[in-house]
Amino acid sequence: MTTDKVLDEDRFARIALIGLGLIGSSIGHAVRRAGRAGETSLAGHIVGHARSQATMDKALEIGFVDSVEADPVAAVRDADLVILSIPVGAFGAMAALIGPHLKPGAILSDVGSVKEAVVRDMSPHLAEGVHLIPGHPVAGTEFSGPESGFAELFDGRWCILTPPPGADPLATEKVTRFWQACGSRVEIMTPKHHDLVLAITSHVPHLIAYNIVGTAADLETVTESEVIKYSAGGFRDFTRIASSDPVMWRDIFLNNREAVIETLGRFVEDLTALQRAIRWGEGDQLEALFTRTRAVRRNIVDAGQETAAPDFGRSHGGDGDDGDSDSDSDA
Amino acid sequence: MTTDKVLDEDRFARIALIGLGLIGSSIGHAVRRAGRAGETSLAGHIVGHARSQATMDKALEIGFVDSVEADPVAAVRDADLVILSIPVGAFGAMAALIGPHLKPGAILSDVGSVKEAVVRDMSPHLAEGVHLIPGHPVAGTEFSGPESGFAELFDGRWCILTPPPGADPLATEKVTRFWQACGSRVEIMTPKHHDLVLAITSHVPHLIAYNIVGTAADLETVTESEVIKYSAGGFRDFTRIASSDPVMWRDIFLNNREAVIETLGRFVEDLTALQRAIRWGEGDQLEALFTRTRAVRRNIVDAGQETAAPDFGRSHGGDGDDGDSDSDSDA
Repeated sequence: MTTDKVLDEDRFARIALIGLGLIGSSIGHAVRRAGRAGETSLAGHIVGHARSQATMDKALEIGFVDSVEADPVAAVRDADLVILSIPVGAFGAMAALIGPHLKPGAILSDVGSVKEAVVRDMSPHLAEGVHLIPGHPVAGTEFSGPESGFAELFDGRWCILTPPPGADPLATEKVTRFWQACGSRVEIMTPKHHDLVLAITSHVPHLIAYNIVGTAADLETVTESEVIKYSAGGFRDFTRIASSDPVMWRDIFLNNREAVIETLGRFVEDLTALQRAIRWGEGDQLEALFTRTRAVRRNIVDAGQETAAPDFGRSHGGDGDDGDSDSDSDA
Repeated sequence: MTTDKVLDEDRFARIALIGLGLIGSSIGHAVRRAGRAGETSLAGHIVGHARSQATMDKALEIGFVDSVEADPVAAVRDADLVILSIPVGAFGAMAALIGPHLKPGAILSDVGSVKEAVVRDMSPHLAEGVHLIPGHPVAGTEFSGPESGFAELFDGRWCILTPPPGADPLATEKVTRFWQACGSRVEIMTPKHHDLVLAITSHVPHLIAYNIVGTAADLETVTESEVIKYSAGGFRDFTRIASSDPVMWRDIFLNNREAVIETLGRFVEDLTALQRAIRWGEGDQLEALFTRTRAVRRNIVDAGQETAAPDFGRSHGGDGDDGDSDSDSDA
């Protein structure tokens, strides 16, 4: 655990979490954990808002917020730090709603997976004296909702901040320390570069995963039951990220069109060359690529961004009968 | 563990394992385990052959074979069951070499990931009275070599057998019982259908994983170091299967060209439609697909072919400093 010690000046008297799904709830848990680990609590009070009352009730029950507000305006009033963890398509409307009610000196941040669109949609609604410091913790699981969060989600993962030109360095520093206290490592870049980096490391991978799962379901020559039975041959790895939140991902693609379409173009170009190599039996070319890609994974494991356990450490003692093989034993 | 009780009639006096990599070594371990679990050992003697002396030495040291033979002809002599676990491109030459030396009544099987080519390449070399019962255990990890095998690899996974028309039903039954004793469930289909099913469940997924890892490495706008740092956004899932054995996969693509190219055509067609939906902002279409694909994963988990642990049960307590996060804790 890399959580730094929490200092007095890192403290926020009141944090408002707008959106209490996987990321919002994990932030709540991580803030609580930082409070326990350090001598100073990271937040005096965590107030939460979600669209549905059921989500807010669940958040209170689990206990990663101190209070909830059905009205987002009430939630952000007097907050020192406001974090939006909602689908990026909803940022403009939310900023218009809460913008006029943010207190002077408040920091508005977010966890959106695209950053140019977020700055574009939020900036017009913010009063002078409010600090917009957009962020993106590159971490997640395929699960959604307030019950899916946990304090360790951000540990050792990178959080990218994209402060606009002229942003207050102190506000940027405070958000940096916040994410470090949540376990993250922090990097700063421009929104445009963020969107390019994420197009290849996240958005296009999700798109092709969604796509192949759809292709498989639509084939006439192979039944869906066969796809499921024999998925251990590789297919099932793709279904994990193809089961991520549909609305969140719809909004990501609609808000990072340019970079996604450009990166996808490169992907298809390379795939066409690979298809040609298969058609013409150019084995050397295939083997050269497959050898090269092996090294990339080694580098990811070496960088602490992946486990080295074979097959993701999946249990191979599965009974295969009751469908419940999320277990303990390992290879 | 589903290992059936081993009966006297399931026993092979002598099993020859040709190829001692991930699958060959796992078979050795599984045979040993079945022997310990049942009242009758599944094999009287396991003889192994690999191209390199180092691999054979390692196999003896680990102990999943009783003896090794540098000459494959010596390895298969007197064997009741011979299993080829070598790259499918090497099947023809190996069959030509060992075919004339298989004893009458022997069963020749394999674990190749393509089946039409295997039957085509091996059949001409087999004497009357030798039973060719091709097989394919749909299981594996991204690791290779004699040290990567383990007895549980096949537990709860499917093994597909593709006996040619006119194959001896008793021989097919015996190979079926063999794989069941190794923990597998067994299905029988034609080689052609096998190759279609595996094209979508395994071969094309591997191809697009190899491809996107290559695309990422070649981008000029995003550095390889950035790809590695931010891989937790989804990319790293692809690198697992893109680190599978390069020669094995080269041979698979070259030997299942038709089905791979056809399936790839469907994949690209669907991807083009998706790209168009992104370009024109057709959010409903995206959301509908992303919702549909979520259900496929649920079905795979329900069928016992996947763990339900979030994020593959990856540790989220990684320290991120020493790059060693293959660990114990979980979400």
